Amino acid sequence: MSVFTKVSEEQLATWLQRYSLGTLVELKGIAAGIENTNYFVTTSLGRYVLTLFERLNESELPFYLNLMSHLAKHGIPCPGPIADRDNGLLGHLNGKPATLVTCLPGKPVMAPAVHHCRIIGGALANMHVAGQSYESTFPNPRGPRWWRETAPQVLPFLDEPRRLLLNAEMADQANARARDLPRGPVHADLFRDNALWDGAPGTERLGGIIDFYFAGVDALLFDVAVAVNDWCIDTRDGALDEARCTALLAAYRGIRPFTAEERDAWPLMLRAAALRFWLSRLFDFYLPRAGELTHAHDPEHFRRILELRRAGVPALVG
Amino acid sequence: MSVFTKVSEEQLATWLQRYSLGTLVELKGIAAGIENTNYFVTTSLGRYVLTLFERLNESELPFYLNLMSHLAKHGIPCPGPIADRDNGLLGHLNGKPATLVTCLPGKPVMAPAVHHCRIIGGALANMHVAGQSYESTFPNPRGPRWWRETAPQVLPFLDEPRRLLLNAEMADQANARARDLPRGPVHADLFRDNALWDGAPGTERLGGIIDFYFAGVDALLFDVAVAVNDWCIDTRDGALDEARCTALLAAYRGIRPFTAEERDAWPLMLRAAALRFWLSRLFDFYLPRAGELTHAHDPEHFRRILELRRAGVPALVG
Repeated sequence: MSVFTKVSEEQLATWLQRYSLGTLVELKGIAAGIENTNYFVTTSLGRYVLTLFERLNESELPFYLNLMSHLAKHGIPCPGPIADRDNGLLGHLNGKPATLVTCLPGKPVMAPAVHHCRIIGGALANMHVAGQSYESTFPNPRGPRWWRETAPQVLPFLDEPRRLLLNAEMADQANARARDLPRGPVHADLFRDNALWDGAPGTERLGGIIDFYFAGVDALLFDVAVAVNDWCIDTRDGALDEARCTALLAAYRGIRPFTAEERDAWPLMLRAAALRFWLSRLFDFYLPRAGELTHAHDPEHFRRILELRRAGVPALVG
Repeated sequence: MSVFTKVSEEQLATWLQRYSLGTLVELKGIAAGIENTNYFVTTSLGRYVLTLFERLNESELPFYLNLMSHLAKHGIPCPGPIADRDNGLLGHLNGKPATLVTCLPGKPVMAPAVHHCRIIGGALANMHVAGQSYESTFPNPRGPRWWRETAPQVLPFLDEPRRLLLNAEMADQANARARDLPRGPVHADLFRDNALWDGAPGTERLGGIIDFYFAGVDALLFDVAVAVNDWCIDTRDGALDEARCTALLAAYRGIRPFTAEERDAWPLMLRAAALRFWLSRLFDFYLPRAGELTHAHDPEHFRRILELRRAGVPALVG
């Protein structure tokens, strides 16, 4: 359940007067999501999603809201924050920073086929192209700096083999992280549950990409690696699925070709993308914040993926 | 047929490289519309509408495109211009100014019921509220100044009763046009064919309001009068339908209450809204531009509406 902060219909009806969205018809909590409180809001004009931010603070939010607004304006199917009567994108509700965004059609597909991977690869590349004209330098909040802060905190909880693996991967990443990769805003969390699909199974279209609240500026290839590590694997063991992997990467490359530096960096980037989620899951598992235990994902999934990627991956085609 | 300027798939595929919308899947001309060339454009990312401007010039277009962008950002269901890789909303294609906008769901309802009028009244009021924070002063291009330029050009073609009617109405409007009405960006052409409805008959939702290319800054009440004169009439004789009229105005007033000045101005504003379209239809009928004759609407429809409104209308409730 992801309604951490309750909002009553009366409170929302009053709050809605800040907008030009008509009057409240229905308010309904959304169960998905582990970071924020989300509601579906139906007004006499349309359907929206209300988000109350439980983790991010006021100074971080403009980067996210303006990025979503920028991408939506460039035709990327993603939630567009609704401007209020004073042209602002951010308000306050029940003591929390809050925003209303457009409601996208569809629902996640948890067992993606080749055509989903092709569509998501193309959409990700278009998002990266659109992001190039977004002017902001907010760094990826779960980038190498965060790894270096987090690894020492989780190491004491690990057994010998895992401690060795984490130390080895941290050392390899520190020694080898490529410097000349194309950079820009990345979603950094484009898992299957952050894409909505609309239409009949087999011919779905992408309703949109959601949940940009881990976004930041980083190597674009990191985003590709995060997506491949979730969309193109056998979920039992984390092994790459060749057909889906090829589809995602070919569609991406058709919009934004990979550079020579990116091809060189690919194997290490797949490991970096696994490391980032292994670390955050270890952290959430061993050092949970109050009331968050129920949401902790199994860290072992990304430990397995990391070990598999260390054992070798197919070369990235330009 | 409203493809005045042909665009080939090859030309568009090249032009699309300016955007982050993926690759061209389908290009299809749109028959509706009498002012611009419109195409449905399907790309690997989504569905859009391409407009080539045949009448408006470069200096006028930013007002329209930025207005649509502003309203879309405020949650008004209207076409949102897509920004290109340089963040621009306007390009050139085949020698014409051109833009891509989001494609809205649904189609027009030509015989609106009470619930359509209620929804359109609320949407219009929300559009006016959202427009208040749009900073621009581009005047309504078909406002009183244009009437004064146009009336002398069509008068020579009219018979005695129509000449008398036109002269009388022009004089009444000149003497009485209210000065203290709330103003802002108005659509100024919100006819039934400029609203799209989505869903099953009887429970449609508003897909969106389209065709903002007669918009300008004017009395908000003028927009209400234009809408009432088209949505809330018996189309055979132009007489107001009480139930639909009441529904539209009550929904509007629920979002933005009418002022005392607006209530006073209402009878004359309904006549002004009829005069504007009688004049433009007379102009298009007697002084057609080359190749436009097939689109001329019958001027008599709005002559009848003007005469009926002069005979008296129900008072506007605050």
